[in-house]
Amino acid sequence: MKKQLFVGLIALLLTQCAVAQDNYTQYVNPLIGTKKMGHTYPGATVPFGAVQLSPDTDTLPYSVNGKYNADVYKYCAGYQYDDPTIVGFSHTHFSGTGHSDLGDFLIMPTTGKLQLNPGTAAQPETGYRSRYSHSSEVATPDYYKVKLEDDNIMAELTTTTRVGVHQYTFPKSDEAHIILDLMHGIYNYDDKNVWTFVRVENDTLVTGFRQTNGWARTRIVYFAMTFSKPIASYGFANFKTYPYKGFYKRFDQSNNFPEMAGEQIRAHFDFKTSENEKLLIKFALSPVSTANAIENLRIETPGNDFATIRKQGEQKWNEELSKIKVETLNKDAKANFYTAMYHAFLSPTVYMDNNNQYKGLDQNVHKADGFTNYTTFSLWDTYRALHPLFNLIQTKRNNDMIKSMLAHQEQSVHKMLPVWSHYANENWCMSGYHSVAVIADAIVKGTNTFDANKALDACIQTANVSYYDGLGEYIKRGYVPDDIRPNSVSTTMEYAFDDWSIAQAAKKLGRMDVYNTFLKRSQNWKNVYDASIGYMRPRLSNGSFRKEFDVLSTNGQGFIEGNAWNYSLFVPQDPEGMIAAMGGEKKFIPHLDSLFTMHLPDKFFEETEDITRDGIIGNYVHGNEPSHHVAYLYNFAHQPWKTQERVRMILKKQYKPDVDGLGGNDDCGQMSAWYIFSTLGFYPFAPGSDDYQLGSPAIKKAILQLENGKTFTIDVKNQGDKNVYVSRVLLNGKEFKGTTLKHSTILGGGVLEFVMSSKH
Amino acid sequence: MKKQLFVGLIALLLTQCAVAQDNYTQYVNPLIGTKKMGHTYPGATVPFGAVQLSPDTDTLPYSVNGKYNADVYKYCAGYQYDDPTIVGFSHTHFSGTGHSDLGDFLIMPTTGKLQLNPGTAAQPETGYRSRYSHSSEVATPDYYKVKLEDDNIMAELTTTTRVGVHQYTFPKSDEAHIILDLMHGIYNYDDKNVWTFVRVENDTLVTGFRQTNGWARTRIVYFAMTFSKPIASYGFANFKTYPYKGFYKRFDQSNNFPEMAGEQIRAHFDFKTSENEKLLIKFALSPVSTANAIENLRIETPGNDFATIRKQGEQKWNEELSKIKVETLNKDAKANFYTAMYHAFLSPTVYMDNNNQYKGLDQNVHKADGFTNYTTFSLWDTYRALHPLFNLIQTKRNNDMIKSMLAHQEQSVHKMLPVWSHYANENWCMSGYHSVAVIADAIVKGTNTFDANKALDACIQTANVSYYDGLGEYIKRGYVPDDIRPNSVSTTMEYAFDDWSIAQAAKKLGRMDVYNTFLKRSQNWKNVYDASIGYMRPRLSNGSFRKEFDVLSTNGQGFIEGNAWNYSLFVPQDPEGMIAAMGGEKKFIPHLDSLFTMHLPDKFFEETEDITRDGIIGNYVHGNEPSHHVAYLYNFAHQPWKTQERVRMILKKQYKPDVDGLGGNDDCGQMSAWYIFSTLGFYPFAPGSDDYQLGSPAIKKAILQLENGKTFTIDVKNQGDKNVYVSRVLLNGKEFKGTTLKHSTILGGGVLEFVMSSKH
Repeated sequence: MKKQLFVGLIALLLTQCAVAQDNYTQYVNPLIGTKKMGHTYPGATVPFGAVQLSPDTDTLPYSVNGKYNADVYKYCAGYQYDDPTIVGFSHTHFSGTGHSDLGDFLIMPTTGKLQLNPGTAAQPETGYRSRYSHSSEVATPDYYKVKLEDDNIMAELTTTTRVGVHQYTFPKSDEAHIILDLMHGIYNYDDKNVWTFVRVENDTLVTGFRQTNGWARTRIVYFAMTFSKPIASYGFANFKTYPYKGFYKRFDQSNNFPEMAGEQIRAHFDFKTSENEKLLIKFALSPVSTANAIENLRIETPGNDFATIRKQGEQKWNEELSKIKVETLNKDAKANFYTAMYHAFLSPTVYMDNNNQYKGLDQNVHKADGFTNYTTFSLWDTYRALHPLFNLIQTKRNNDMIKSMLAHQEQSVHKMLPVWSHYANENWCMSGYHSVAVIADAIVKGTNTFDANKALDACIQTANVSYYDGLGEYIKRGYVPDDIRPNSVSTTMEYAFDDWSIAQAAKKLGRMDVYNTFLKRSQNWKNVYDASIGYMRPRLSNGSFRKEFDVLSTNGQGFIEGNAWNYSLFVPQDPEGMIAAMGGEKKFIPHLDSLFTMHLPDKFFEETEDITRDGIIGNYVHGNEPSHHVAYLYNFAHQPWKTQERVRMILKKQYKPDVDGLGGNDDCGQMSAWYIFSTLGFYPFAPGSDDYQLGSPAIKKAILQLENGKTFTIDVKNQGDKNVYVSRVLLNGKEFKGTTLKHSTILGGGVLEFVMSSKH
Repeated sequence: MKKQLFVGLIALLLTQCAVAQDNYTQYVNPLIGTKKMGHTYPGATVPFGAVQLSPDTDTLPYSVNGKYNADVYKYCAGYQYDDPTIVGFSHTHFSGTGHSDLGDFLIMPTTGKLQLNPGTAAQPETGYRSRYSHSSEVATPDYYKVKLEDDNIMAELTTTTRVGVHQYTFPKSDEAHIILDLMHGIYNYDDKNVWTFVRVENDTLVTGFRQTNGWARTRIVYFAMTFSKPIASYGFANFKTYPYKGFYKRFDQSNNFPEMAGEQIRAHFDFKTSENEKLLIKFALSPVSTANAIENLRIETPGNDFATIRKQGEQKWNEELSKIKVETLNKDAKANFYTAMYHAFLSPTVYMDNNNQYKGLDQNVHKADGFTNYTTFSLWDTYRALHPLFNLIQTKRNNDMIKSMLAHQEQSVHKMLPVWSHYANENWCMSGYHSVAVIADAIVKGTNTFDANKALDACIQTANVSYYDGLGEYIKRGYVPDDIRPNSVSTTMEYAFDDWSIAQAAKKLGRMDVYNTFLKRSQNWKNVYDASIGYMRPRLSNGSFRKEFDVLSTNGQGFIEGNAWNYSLFVPQDPEGMIAAMGGEKKFIPHLDSLFTMHLPDKFFEETEDITRDGIIGNYVHGNEPSHHVAYLYNFAHQPWKTQERVRMILKKQYKPDVDGLGGNDDCGQMSAWYIFSTLGFYPFAPGSDDYQLGSPAIKKAILQLENGKTFTIDVKNQGDKNVYVSRVLLNGKEFKGTTLKHSTILGGGVLEFVMSSKH
């Protein structure tokens, strides 16, 4: 007894210590980016959590009468701030993507007459959706609250890694309902649902799955849901009928029949509620089975106390957010910083049950041996800064993510590392094979806990799949011919960069034959450079450059998410070579200057994907990733003060702590990772190198907690809004020369001091 | 070395001994029942095998323009003898069912121009199907051979438990193809395919799955297929397009792209062949995963030698067929007997991988602990004679089948034992809960290796699911009211019989409260007996009998697969009580006599399901099961000679060794089990009792090999076509009185001698 009391006291003290610490979640505003193009969601989740439980204000069909419905685009994350109604709360969401999927298992509480259709935003009373007001809305990383006005229900959401927890406070009602809509989904269209299945196991437990054919072609998510009080009655409606009804027809399946299945079904669970009665729903997901979902639920939410679960989520966020402690010039900057940290730590997401089982790319069930399996790899975006950020302050997770990619490669019928993968599927979105840069970055920086040589083999295999996106031609000719593949130039340039990163890893591992092969390939950008005009340009299979060509257009010019003007600067593996090719520093610097100052005519802006007008500065398009390294190019032209100036300008113009504060899609955290690095004063210019380029820190102080137990402090003297120029840098008190910071330097711990000035 | 030589010699001797033994497969003709209503298939399978690799001569859609297509019925097993073409060879078939599903993974070899549609029977050259002739057809239990005439390809099929093995002998061709049709299926309709998925893992291995919504609502079958030589090229066509094409569109998926998926796809694999070149395809199934299918393939077919695999299958059949060795009056009787044995041993089928994993009713993967899991339980049919036959000569398998049923019950959201289940689904076909009779039969006969008390609990739970098919009303009122459920009378009578079997098991286990409860319920047949007309009759919820009623009609009269005339005799649990209720023996005997001699008017015959005109004798419908015990009723009316006479007449009229020799569906072996028992001279009149009723043996001698190591011999003296009457019976040389043979007597081994006569 005494021992228990003592343990209890220690626990209490520890809890109070935790409370006494700074609560970093207070600085996060999940609503940032929920208006217009940010494509973020405001709901509840834990860091890298498998469940993203968030309100959907609408979803819209992906296509109408067989034609793409452009309006669907703004619903990539299910929530648009200006929408007047909430349809319900679904359990899976991407953060910041420019294409979408998911939105699984929508739950909505209602009272009164049962309605099994969502209704419309204009007439919410025609369905189960509800009006709401932002004044009742509370959003913190793992907690979301809103009043559903139509039926006077207070909704609160929180999560564990694999369990969404709903708490609904009802009015007194003899007809309280929980709608489970299995037809609901993001980027839905007729027949996107392949099959759905529900079993009412007993009066508090329901299980099932949803199988879809969308961005992920063969995707299935399993669930187990418990109610805190017994279901009084239940039923479902099937919105698609078949010629063959089967012998189930002998049952009245719509009422209290515990098996539901079909392509298009919505279920309801009915209760009687007293005034202010709270109904708790725990909703666990699994990539493998309902049995695993039940286990996830049992393990992660043994109790029914919403407040305790919420507190645990908050603690998880605090642990992650506090990995970088910053002092900022003002409150807005702090909100920006910790919201960026929050966005950066949303994905990739855990894709594995508590028993380590997960579904592999081959649709078989695998067991992760010694790592946590992750999914949602938006690698065209995230190899640039997000994975380097993880490599620095989430080293273990980054290794687990790479182990997940390597497992994907083993399971791939193409023996390819992920391009853009989610939920046991390769969706083939965007171009390149940027997994290799993530892997090389870990090998070169020496942070890898995976087998580096095996991983390098996987990279080499990936880089030699001849039928993939012009790759065979690229290997043969040194470029992707424009008459054979669209986006031929950007694809060529991305392959060349990826090849360089493979070369760097090979060098580190002493495999010089591989190094030589891929270093040679990394120079292939030269094959699409048209020296006569000073830009990269589409090249045909006969060797000539394409005639019709506009460097400002992004429409069918041989580039994706970027025009030739921007993309021509994408040679992070050889900036000096690129500057030389472009006529040397003298010619290059005014050329680069003009990028930020020129006016991009409206007709070209309109072609630019994924961003608002605010998302561009001159012709510099920060909202799309291919230019993310561009501001740092001045360092290589010996005018670092211009890098400093541009970086601070971009930080200021492109990131605002407002609902519409993001100029473009957050892209699974890549935009946020750019913010974090740049505001700290350095940036991973070329992942696969152990160098960072210095920029201009925008914080006053930052302490990075490294996983080796050391801390690396960035201490900024004379910081100010106008003091954007770095006049002096000291490392551990000693003068620091040049603009290149080594990863190994950071790992050694210590203090990097910047002295700022308003003049350069 | 010496020891190995010795072991080798022993093995050689044993093999030669095996060869020297009678080969019982020579008596089996798998073509029996393939014409008209037998619904049997002629292809290759091993006893209770998971793969039934058989030619499909057509399948037809289940519905046309949303309406049921009655012509589909004859294709329950995919093959009709009179059809002029073969579409291909698919891997799963039911034997003798009256509704259908399956037909998974059709393989067809072709040469010349690639055709990815099956074409029509009238114009086979418009598709991949081919003409064939019965003259080239060879069918033995685990071997099927036919010449595909259109492209001059010899097709040969054999199987292991989980692997179908194809051997195609091609002509010389630069364009030889193997078509894999994933759209093909039995009882197909638009959207029956929920999803299909194929991966070309390497140039000899292909994996994938087919998921359907049919008789089984949520069914999925996985496969792994290997070719004996590398694929030269391959591709697929998708016959259903979606508004969302996905980023797969960047590939030419139709040519050599190793991932195929969609609802409606057909794939082809191309080869060059030399004259008479043999291509071997091994095609493994799994209920769980492609990984398990690959393992099944590796374990069961380590080599590529078709002849060896075929030999192993033949040996497996010989082991099973030789469990009853018979001497018959003629060749036809022997063909009938061993074909009946073959049909009886086709299903239930193994539903478990070599690692003991299987998919459960809850769609989770389970591991069978100490038993082999089986599926395809057509219990309304098979509880009558097939499971009693298994209980006698397949005791271990029957226990495993019951363990499979008990696992099903545990996984059932209703906590019900199977009604009609296949492939991890309950299809709810037919009525009653006849699993309980199978279980009770094992408990009462003392053959159970399962936990009898737990099994009895499962029976009790099953018999109390109030929302199942009028069961709540039945429990409350003692009958199913006709105004509440169709087939109210037959359902009431079947429940009453099943309840009696539960009572018998309870009695054996000393659970007298359960015994009393269910014995009382077993008398419920009396509640639907209308003494004023002498027949069972639909009764309304107000207690009165329905007015409009015809004892000869099977159409909407309150009965299923039987008219009131026949069904009124269905009280196997209390024949004496029934005879008394019907006015005693004096009235009953002429009544029963008239059943076999009356003429059933055509209009009533036309209502009779599943049988040809040959399938009835007077108004006695042998093709449907409810009358299977009827001929034995005379024993209880003290006129056993009439039982003997009728049984011999039925054996003679209803079973012929011809392609159209079965008068009705074989019903997963129930019709064959009736033949086996009756031809041996005894029949399990009421499963759940340890009694058999003696009839009239039609063989000359039979030796039953029991699993306890003993044999039970039936020795018939003075046998002859006209000597249908039993003048004397001796058990182990001593006079045997009465008509009741105990199961325990058989288990004790010995000789039962019948002395026959042409007069009674």
